[in-house]
Amino acid sequence: MQKKISSPLPLQAVRVTDPFWSREIHLIRDAVIPYQWDALNDRIPDAEKSWWAHNMRAAARAVNAKKASGAYNPVQTNCGFTVYPPASEAPRDDSFYGFVFQDSDGYKWLEAAAYQLSIHPDEKLKVQAQEAVNLIIAAQEEDGYLNTYYTVTGREKAFSNLKDHHELYCFGHLTEAAIAWRQATGQDDLLNVVRRFAACIGRKYGPGKERGCPGHEIAEMALLRLYEETGEKEWLKLARFFLDVRGTDPSTFALEENRRREREGQPPLPVTAERYAYYQAHLPVRQMKEAVGHAVRQMYLASGMADEARIMNDADMLAACEALWRSTVHEKMYVTGGVGGTHVGEAFSRPYDLPADTAYSETCAAIGLAFFARRMLQLQPKAEYADVMERALYNTVLAGMALDGKSFFYVNPLEVDPAACETDERLRHVKPIRQKWFGCACCPPNIARIVSSLGQYIATQSPDTLYIHLLIGSDITVRLNGEEITVRVEADLKNAELSLTVLSGHAHGTITVREPGWMTVSGYELCQCRPHITEENGYACFTGDWKPGDSIEWNFVIVPQVIAASPLVKEAEGQVCYTWGPYVFCAEEADNGKQLHLLRACPEILNTCDMEEQEIGGLRVPVLTVPGKRVIVRPDAPLYAPWAPTETEDTRITLIPYFAWNNRGMGEMRVWLPAEQG
Amino acid sequence: MQKKISSPLPLQAVRVTDPFWSREIHLIRDAVIPYQWDALNDRIPDAEKSWWAHNMRAAARAVNAKKASGAYNPVQTNCGFTVYPPASEAPRDDSFYGFVFQDSDGYKWLEAAAYQLSIHPDEKLKVQAQEAVNLIIAAQEEDGYLNTYYTVTGREKAFSNLKDHHELYCFGHLTEAAIAWRQATGQDDLLNVVRRFAACIGRKYGPGKERGCPGHEIAEMALLRLYEETGEKEWLKLARFFLDVRGTDPSTFALEENRRREREGQPPLPVTAERYAYYQAHLPVRQMKEAVGHAVRQMYLASGMADEARIMNDADMLAACEALWRSTVHEKMYVTGGVGGTHVGEAFSRPYDLPADTAYSETCAAIGLAFFARRMLQLQPKAEYADVMERALYNTVLAGMALDGKSFFYVNPLEVDPAACETDERLRHVKPIRQKWFGCACCPPNIARIVSSLGQYIATQSPDTLYIHLLIGSDITVRLNGEEITVRVEADLKNAELSLTVLSGHAHGTITVREPGWMTVSGYELCQCRPHITEENGYACFTGDWKPGDSIEWNFVIVPQVIAASPLVKEAEGQVCYTWGPYVFCAEEADNGKQLHLLRACPEILNTCDMEEQEIGGLRVPVLTVPGKRVIVRPDAPLYAPWAPTETEDTRITLIPYFAWNNRGMGEMRVWLPAEQG
Repeated sequence: MQKKISSPLPLQAVRVTDPFWSREIHLIRDAVIPYQWDALNDRIPDAEKSWWAHNMRAAARAVNAKKASGAYNPVQTNCGFTVYPPASEAPRDDSFYGFVFQDSDGYKWLEAAAYQLSIHPDEKLKVQAQEAVNLIIAAQEEDGYLNTYYTVTGREKAFSNLKDHHELYCFGHLTEAAIAWRQATGQDDLLNVVRRFAACIGRKYGPGKERGCPGHEIAEMALLRLYEETGEKEWLKLARFFLDVRGTDPSTFALEENRRREREGQPPLPVTAERYAYYQAHLPVRQMKEAVGHAVRQMYLASGMADEARIMNDADMLAACEALWRSTVHEKMYVTGGVGGTHVGEAFSRPYDLPADTAYSETCAAIGLAFFARRMLQLQPKAEYADVMERALYNTVLAGMALDGKSFFYVNPLEVDPAACETDERLRHVKPIRQKWFGCACCPPNIARIVSSLGQYIATQSPDTLYIHLLIGSDITVRLNGEEITVRVEADLKNAELSLTVLSGHAHGTITVREPGWMTVSGYELCQCRPHITEENGYACFTGDWKPGDSIEWNFVIVPQVIAASPLVKEAEGQVCYTWGPYVFCAEEADNGKQLHLLRACPEILNTCDMEEQEIGGLRVPVLTVPGKRVIVRPDAPLYAPWAPTETEDTRITLIPYFAWNNRGMGEMRVWLPAEQG
Repeated sequence: MQKKISSPLPLQAVRVTDPFWSREIHLIRDAVIPYQWDALNDRIPDAEKSWWAHNMRAAARAVNAKKASGAYNPVQTNCGFTVYPPASEAPRDDSFYGFVFQDSDGYKWLEAAAYQLSIHPDEKLKVQAQEAVNLIIAAQEEDGYLNTYYTVTGREKAFSNLKDHHELYCFGHLTEAAIAWRQATGQDDLLNVVRRFAACIGRKYGPGKERGCPGHEIAEMALLRLYEETGEKEWLKLARFFLDVRGTDPSTFALEENRRREREGQPPLPVTAERYAYYQAHLPVRQMKEAVGHAVRQMYLASGMADEARIMNDADMLAACEALWRSTVHEKMYVTGGVGGTHVGEAFSRPYDLPADTAYSETCAAIGLAFFARRMLQLQPKAEYADVMERALYNTVLAGMALDGKSFFYVNPLEVDPAACETDERLRHVKPIRQKWFGCACCPPNIARIVSSLGQYIATQSPDTLYIHLLIGSDITVRLNGEEITVRVEADLKNAELSLTVLSGHAHGTITVREPGWMTVSGYELCQCRPHITEENGYACFTGDWKPGDSIEWNFVIVPQVIAASPLVKEAEGQVCYTWGPYVFCAEEADNGKQLHLLRACPEILNTCDMEEQEIGGLRVPVLTVPGKRVIVRPDAPLYAPWAPTETEDTRITLIPYFAWNNRGMGEMRVWLPAEQG
């Protein structure tokens, strides 16, 4: 099969017009980003503190103290801002607070803010983002090192615990932010910070230097993006070094641990890699076949591996990526596009172990899955990659945030009973209501950055082809064989309207559009154009000469689907869930009363399912009403009794999209419903 | 309803002849008790250490040191033994090892040994038991105090942490052992130790003295038994004091904690009781309605409460016992007679939360449930109490021990997948194979003592009535209205033979025999006698004049039953299990291959179930073969797909009694099987 490599378009080239997603993107801009800026500055009452700005200032003061023997030294940036720190705001102490990876929260926020600035000028946001940039600039040490934890608590310990202390993770997020910031503003200020920090890292680690690799991956994909952004080969080399050293013997993590143990007078541990599966450092990456360990890390690593496979045309790496994809998507993914079956280590569990109520399914892991899927799509446009990306985005990623953008889920189970969560230690990780902020606040800014960069998931391009992966209304400007055209995608799924129109420009080339499994296409209405039409891997490919006014209109229907899991998934045994289009549905107490487990779906009588829109949390969402039964519980029913066919009464079950759950107060929720047979 | 109070018979009066239970009792005598004696003396290679004998010796040396200014002072007991300690066996140090409740392991062993001596003379066992008694005597302090932990680590701290440090728990087990020892041997040596320890406790706690109560209950029922054994009212008073003070404000546990906190300079905690539900000390006992907290403690407390209700004719206490019974048995009991749905605190979970694979269902808790049930039977002979006692004994209690008596389960889930246990931290408490011993070895000697005293569960008596609760072949000697008769119960359930014969004696009175729900009685064949026959609460009552040769023979059948749980039990949703007679059955990998969750039971075609005996682990056990299906797993089956009726193939499912599982190597096991509908 011929490889079809593609790349995301610049964000400016994909103007999202779809009402649903426009609302989400505006919500991020209008509510989430300002809220998170306040959170980073510890200005949200009753929320856990972020400490981000505090730590940056503390680090900056430590850096200044080094530079000027302790004298206060305001930072002049290349933008004329003097942000750090007005004396009136000086915090009372310069200790480091929060997790060692606290820096990354602000980097993620900045990345999201930059994406928003790419698609929508906003002077106030620009000022805030520049303030963040300046804080970061101020916190960088003279040799390029940048990590508030070690700068504040003792630089001499830097790089001593790559396994757990997230320095390279923070570097990776900083890099992503700096690239987004440059793409938004054209400014190199933050990118230069990154170059200096990367050079500092590169002086220590690399071929012929010290061995080491990140305990929490992301630096790999960030360095590869930095290489692609700048063309500077040293970053490609460093990314490949980190990938290549990972999981090889002697394990760099074991060596690190043994250095600490030696200082503490403890006997050394074996230096073989196999103990480090939690960190995906148990095997050389090209030998990996199973998604294991911390789910976010695994997804970030796989994303970096896919980038490397594409950039280097690395067949072994590609094979490993495909194996990890199969393991993730065919054995370990929730139907909601979430990954991470166990809260123990926020991790992948064994194949097919996908419990609904104790699920971890971290929001960030679903985001990581979307990253991985987008990168697999860049390697090969296949419907399966887009299906999974879409499933993660429309369901678990969006579920991570309330419809008003003001509260968040970190954990996304498929079944919640608030009464159980309240008392059951085994469900301690499950919050039955979204939280304002988290001490470990990785998820909220991660949602902000992926939603703000949605355009990079909607479409990718190769020199002669535009690939449209997500059916989301947008105007896309692309060069095909050197000629620029702008095409408009209109997608009103509820009214079964999907069309593609050339707005401007003339070009010869291919426009491919994914036709998801959940829609049934009966034909096309072509206007002004007669492209050559083929179908490949779930995409319709239209090849021809394009001119303004050319358009394609799809004839299609979308009906609700009843989905069952493989019989190997014990936890979904005998159960079904419903989907319509890209949405996975769930039953909520608000519509169906308590004791949702007493509901029975009737998958055989699907023809009476109704889909209509209803308002939830200020948003009109598709709502399904499906035929069902409710088990009758006799008040005197014994705990155990001779079996008899279950007594039920007919009912209609109301199902709402999973992403919209928990926007009407606390209550039970359930995705999988036991199926009435026969 | 007229109350019908009854009491257990002396063990000597119930000679168990039933082959199945005789084997169990002999196994305890021949294998378990000698093995556990070695365990208590730390002579089992590769097993966790008990430290029991070591701690006793260390305490005895500490006591001697106090008595004789450190001089070695061998202990002369009233039996002429000089056991402590031969110089050659002197351990290297006199530290305390193990848990603070380690003493109780030996007390339980001694109690079991005493029961065995009651039913079967055994000089070697008698010598070992006397050695244990003498060790205990030697470890008692001059004022009667007896707890090796505090004697070794600092007597001045005694009674400072009743909540967690198990002094009164150890006292309770010592008391049970002493009574059993006296009943077996007529010797008062250990009972006098108990009297002195009880007096020591009574000098500190009681009406008008300090408030306090046991953190782990058992002293209540032990003191009440001591009262019934000796007629000494002070023990009744002390038991009632412990019951009455429990759960009242200010909480004695909170006061204890606050004394410690004050010493450590911490602020005091609120002194209200509600925080102490784990200890069943959150409410005054007569107000308790729900079984909560640590399951063993709850069962032991309920047992003591039932004794108090009976002895004192305490209506409020009886009402609380009945409420706790309902909560336990109607909302929180596994179908195997296990209790404790969560490993978090080894505790009761919320009503109907009865997960199969993560179950705790501690062996000791099932034993406690049998204690509670026997005591409820003593208050009122009702089939429900006997049903539950039987279910616990025949299933979870017996499952706690391998068929060779040499390894033990602490935790008894209803579904086990060894591969999952191996890797899944959430299943860390589940061992897929029985263990030789435990650091916390409460369960093995607890099985030994209940099985050895089985006679006290088979029957109870009132002045005019013999109640036969369990259909277990035995010769029972009882006084009815002052006249002694011996009746023989023969119960060969597999061959549908059940009879009762008067072997000797003449008496007028009632013999009642439980007719369990799992057998269908069509009539009686009476030989030589024409008793008046009534039925009450699931018992057939035969009243008349009895003489040698009188006999009753039952006409009955037992067929396999398919059992379903209430729809409120989410975890058993759509599933069934099989029972035959008192046995709950399970499917094992050894008979049915791997992936047991792919099996489907067909409850509607019960008429083709076969029951026959097969040998497992050297024992012939009933084995069911039932019609079923096996779900076909296509190798290319996707993780999620549009629903279709499940593809299955016909199969026969082999089911063995739950107690016999895991005697053929490690493998999957499952009690509940999804039911094929329609």
